[in-house]
Amino acid sequence: MNSDFSWLKPGTCTSPLGYRASGVAAGIKAAQADMAMLVSDSPASLAGLFTSNRVAAAPVQLGRRHLAGGQVQAVVVNSGCANACTGPEGYADAVEMARLAAARLGIASELVQVSSTGVIGRRLPMERIAAGIDLAAAALARQGGDSAAKAIMTTDTVDKQGAVQFEQDGTTITIGGMCKGAGMISPNMATMLAYLTTDAAIAPADLQAALASAVNKSFNRITVDGDQSTNDTVLLLANGAAGAAAITPASPAWPRFCAALDALCLELAQKIVRDGEGATKFVTVSVSGAADAADALTCARAIANSPLFKTACFGGDPNWGRVIAAAGYSGAAVDAQRVQIYFDDVCVYDRGQIADAAARARLAAVMQQTSFTVSINLNLGPAADTVYTCDFSYDYIKINGDYTT
Amino acid sequence: MNSDFSWLKPGTCTSPLGYRASGVAAGIKAAQADMAMLVSDSPASLAGLFTSNRVAAAPVQLGRRHLAGGQVQAVVVNSGCANACTGPEGYADAVEMARLAAARLGIASELVQVSSTGVIGRRLPMERIAAGIDLAAAALARQGGDSAAKAIMTTDTVDKQGAVQFEQDGTTITIGGMCKGAGMISPNMATMLAYLTTDAAIAPADLQAALASAVNKSFNRITVDGDQSTNDTVLLLANGAAGAAAITPASPAWPRFCAALDALCLELAQKIVRDGEGATKFVTVSVSGAADAADALTCARAIANSPLFKTACFGGDPNWGRVIAAAGYSGAAVDAQRVQIYFDDVCVYDRGQIADAAARARLAAVMQQTSFTVSINLNLGPAADTVYTCDFSYDYIKINGDYTT
Repeated sequence: MNSDFSWLKPGTCTSPLGYRASGVAAGIKAAQADMAMLVSDSPASLAGLFTSNRVAAAPVQLGRRHLAGGQVQAVVVNSGCANACTGPEGYADAVEMARLAAARLGIASELVQVSSTGVIGRRLPMERIAAGIDLAAAALARQGGDSAAKAIMTTDTVDKQGAVQFEQDGTTITIGGMCKGAGMISPNMATMLAYLTTDAAIAPADLQAALASAVNKSFNRITVDGDQSTNDTVLLLANGAAGAAAITPASPAWPRFCAALDALCLELAQKIVRDGEGATKFVTVSVSGAADAADALTCARAIANSPLFKTACFGGDPNWGRVIAAAGYSGAAVDAQRVQIYFDDVCVYDRGQIADAAARARLAAVMQQTSFTVSINLNLGPAADTVYTCDFSYDYIKINGDYTT
Repeated sequence: MNSDFSWLKPGTCTSPLGYRASGVAAGIKAAQADMAMLVSDSPASLAGLFTSNRVAAAPVQLGRRHLAGGQVQAVVVNSGCANACTGPEGYADAVEMARLAAARLGIASELVQVSSTGVIGRRLPMERIAAGIDLAAAALARQGGDSAAKAIMTTDTVDKQGAVQFEQDGTTITIGGMCKGAGMISPNMATMLAYLTTDAAIAPADLQAALASAVNKSFNRITVDGDQSTNDTVLLLANGAAGAAAITPASPAWPRFCAALDALCLELAQKIVRDGEGATKFVTVSVSGAADAADALTCARAIANSPLFKTACFGGDPNWGRVIAAAGYSGAAVDAQRVQIYFDDVCVYDRGQIADAAARARLAAVMQQTSFTVSINLNLGPAADTVYTCDFSYDYIKINGDYTT
């Protein structure tokens, strides 16, 4: 499948044709870039997925409304303030943020998507937002994706970008993307902030189907702390600027587009886990042999979110018992006499037989690595699923013990 | 209700008449007491609740079987090894542990309950267990409850005991109890190890009903890390040694017995949270106005288990947004425009209105306390529930990063 597309490095959300972007310091955070703008030269098809948290932030509520039109031309994002739980006034702030950007760019408000990320329960500083929109619009550039990717960061320690290309009837099609997120990461139906662009021509409904499928295998399969955000948003813009024919599910290019999109989403999602707050290790939790698909995901999520498992990963403690304990309380059907557990290629528990001293020593070595896979075969059925997680370290406590102060 | 019973200090599981106990060092852990024995002078009625984790440890499997008889005379507990996920051999070890104790005490094996707590996935050192049973039997004493309470500890920093008394027709009835647990605490249907004794005379079925009700309001409402153990066990023994008439649900003494038992279970459960691994703060999460009982508990549990909320409690960071975010993703019905949030008496969010600077300053002061209550009124219905939790500190990471090594 990888042979159907290739990676661009360094790739950004402005790698596809017909997009400009910028990142500027609007003064919402102290002396850091905190406002990003992404603009398509012409109205683009829009697909979007938002948090399923019942407490959705104001920009998410507005974004859902604007998504109904299926079209977008600009995305405006601020970091430093989530504009969540801010009541009708906060919703009015989001509307005003879209109106200001639309006026500055000379487009309709309905073609603007706004996002906010940062502390919950604080009003947006609207004067700074307004000044920042002017600055960001003036700074728009074809090479501005990198600046934009940096401006959307909060506790992220690195920016997260990528781009892929494939051929459609002799035309090169590009998909670019950027995302942010390091804490409050346990997406369900969408994740923290991620913005994807393509110069392919694809109708909104088809674009939405492709995005939903890709997100379900990537952003919806990661966790840092099991805390689902109020602001999770994934947007995919398709402006057709490459000049190729429209791609539909019946097109020969459709599977190539989906494979490229899937790979880009998975790469970006894994970047979030690798940069998880305080994370020192990247851990893949892979469940097979589950009775059904829901059990496979439930079991994998329980293990991936277990504080005891995550602290053992941090310390490199070969305490595999915490894996089967989490499987047992997950709610999935589990029979301890059938379970097999591997850490990479080291079998630590095989249907009632526990690891001997030699296996425990090899397990300790596996857990010293910065990346490893825990495979759990429940041996009860055909279903499998995979969730990506990181360890819990002292730095997670440090980062979150004084986030707002 | 408190006037119906009184507290005994220092109270232990041997405060009621007709019980002896001991705690000895059997060499399972290095140079620490690691084996406890509790014996009733005569066969006692037994009530018991065990983990609902689908991966139940061998002693839990055996305990369920022996509970079917409704009678018990001895309880034998080792710390340092959980005898969980040890296959048929581990189950045979639990059976042998009961047989050895029964032989030493001259009673039937079916009258022995065995418990193990410690690392999962390791076989019991049976020679040491056998020697420890001999030692513990020889050390049995009326005042031995304190030694027993210390011998069942693992990462606990303090032993956890209590005893209450009430009058039944001029006879003093006593209920004593001890428990252990500091990590892998998120009980459901039962908790870590807790042993309760009374000299009241109560039939097994009635005793079970009283215990189930008490546990549901106490041990089933605490969390340290959201990780549910494979070994959770609560046992209540009633030997009638006080010499009073049998208590049934129709007796005038029944509500007094239940009130005293409820209070003792809640006190012991809260001791577990206060001694939670690395805990520096005790936090009560109280949800009201939920649409139904399931929503109230779901919402309270989500907040109490949120790593972001728990790290904010540790740091004293007045980040109340994490409370409403957790409520929103809990699965309970939540409408942000109706929610009210208090930290003790400080309102930080009132149906869309966020706290002003003065309230935030008072919130920061509340969170500096070692104990406080977070009250969330969802204003959607009549249901309420309360869960007790602690903060997540550096020491939680430290304790669990190298638990088995």
